[in-house]
Amino acid sequence: MNPIRITIVGVGLIGGSLALALKRAGLAQEIVGTGSRPSTLARAKELGVIDIAQSNLGLAVAQADLVVLAVPVGSTKTVISGLRNVCTDSVVITDVGSTKQSVVEAVRAIAPDWESRFVPGHPVAGTEKSGPEAAFDSLFDGRRVILTPSERTDKAATEFVAEVWRAAGAEVCEMTPSHHDRVLGATSHLPHVLASSLVNCLANQQEHDEILQFAAGGFADFTRIASSHPAMWRDIVEANQGSVMEALDRFSEELAQFRSAIAKQDWGDVEHRFQQAREERAIFLQQYAAKQEEGGA
Amino acid sequence: MNPIRITIVGVGLIGGSLALALKRAGLAQEIVGTGSRPSTLARAKELGVIDIAQSNLGLAVAQADLVVLAVPVGSTKTVISGLRNVCTDSVVITDVGSTKQSVVEAVRAIAPDWESRFVPGHPVAGTEKSGPEAAFDSLFDGRRVILTPSERTDKAATEFVAEVWRAAGAEVCEMTPSHHDRVLGATSHLPHVLASSLVNCLANQQEHDEILQFAAGGFADFTRIASSHPAMWRDIVEANQGSVMEALDRFSEELAQFRSAIAKQDWGDVEHRFQQAREERAIFLQQYAAKQEEGGA
Repeated sequence: MNPIRITIVGVGLIGGSLALALKRAGLAQEIVGTGSRPSTLARAKELGVIDIAQSNLGLAVAQADLVVLAVPVGSTKTVISGLRNVCTDSVVITDVGSTKQSVVEAVRAIAPDWESRFVPGHPVAGTEKSGPEAAFDSLFDGRRVILTPSERTDKAATEFVAEVWRAAGAEVCEMTPSHHDRVLGATSHLPHVLASSLVNCLANQQEHDEILQFAAGGFADFTRIASSHPAMWRDIVEANQGSVMEALDRFSEELAQFRSAIAKQDWGDVEHRFQQAREERAIFLQQYAAKQEEGGA
Repeated sequence: MNPIRITIVGVGLIGGSLALALKRAGLAQEIVGTGSRPSTLARAKELGVIDIAQSNLGLAVAQADLVVLAVPVGSTKTVISGLRNVCTDSVVITDVGSTKQSVVEAVRAIAPDWESRFVPGHPVAGTEKSGPEAAFDSLFDGRRVILTPSERTDKAATEFVAEVWRAAGAEVCEMTPSHHDRVLGATSHLPHVLASSLVNCLANQQEHDEILQFAAGGFADFTRIASSHPAMWRDIVEANQGSVMEALDRFSEELAQFRSAIAKQDWGDVEHRFQQAREERAIFLQQYAAKQEEGGA
């Protein structure tokens, strides 16, 4: 793949890390950063994350071969509206949103002429930090990127975006937007709600200070994701309301069964539940470690 | 404190790490290890975790100044029964069990003459690994050890055990057994049940393989404690049934409120919940990091 001109809308953790990963791969002829906050753009330029900071959207995308929308899910509609009339007819556009059905619907409603060259995407990677300072070039190494093209999406556009992500170190796969939202609702959005609920549950108790004082390392790990950006996660839950509630209800049912085993003093069942979880997690870790290794190699 | 003779019953992660920490501190004149599995004892000796492997309980404790019961909560009664008639009248005895009310009751029922010199204890530390191979000398550095003496416990015995733990790097505090069980039920036992339930909930879904495949690093962290030893955790939940169920019910109520906010599309409330969790966790992390630093210094 020859070096290309890339415009990244939103140079935070994800957008910034993609910029750095593509520079590392030698794929970026020029990376233009744009976004709503001039100070963030200036900082990203200063840090060498982007080559050009351009706060005028029209100028930012004028020369681009690829436009990447790397904004929080809640800002997607606004950004699509802003870009609708300034993107050229040939540019390929993709996004990095954590939910996909909502993005597909926004494009269909606001910029239907984009559909053939808009490739919805979601890199399953991140940290609890945000901003261009948090960006690093290996964030996507060995991580999955899920593309969710529809039957109206141009195959060449999808393959182009897939190649860009592979160059950034990621492993690319495809699924439908609704399937994506169900899978991520269960594996990502649900754990965020659980971790936050656990912290709040403990914090709301009388012995608040003491309880936090005696929480150990396991609690620190378990609740790491509760430190993520609140407004971003509100938007994700809003955009994926149906799947999040479905996942929540499944989990509550599972938890009720565990509670029932404890209440009935069925210790064999309790052990079986801990045992099953340990075995399933071992399978997950094998797959996860294998992916991480591939990425590192 | 002069070097003392210590007998550790159960040389796994906790017992083995205590042995190594006391050697590091120069406090151990001699560490005798005992337990039900000769192969574990031999391995602990081979690794230099203990000085003497002695599978005869009576011989193991005959010369000891301090006996540490470092067995899983489920084996506590058996070990107390085995030790009841072989311990000298002057030896101080302590334990490391994750629940305290059940241990206090077992001593009262099986070895009531121990009460004045039995100091119930719980080091709030651990990893998901087990066995003497997993032991390391800094496991308790900066970690809390909770002692739960009763009014019948000799103050000098409590202070002796506290000094030993401080020498091992820990920060020692006291509370009642029932209060300990409530606090740990909320901060440790509840998260274990939640993590295991989440893994099982995902594993029981149709798209099982795919779901584990797309789970990312956040999921790995969130569920780390689901890899802990199943039988040990069954015993902990059994020994602390009341507090675990109380914690589960509080959590379920908190989760139901979160679900209700999502169902009502009250996104302000949803954001507030994520926000509160982030702030509370930041407070926890400050305290936790401060403790770790003290321990390291």
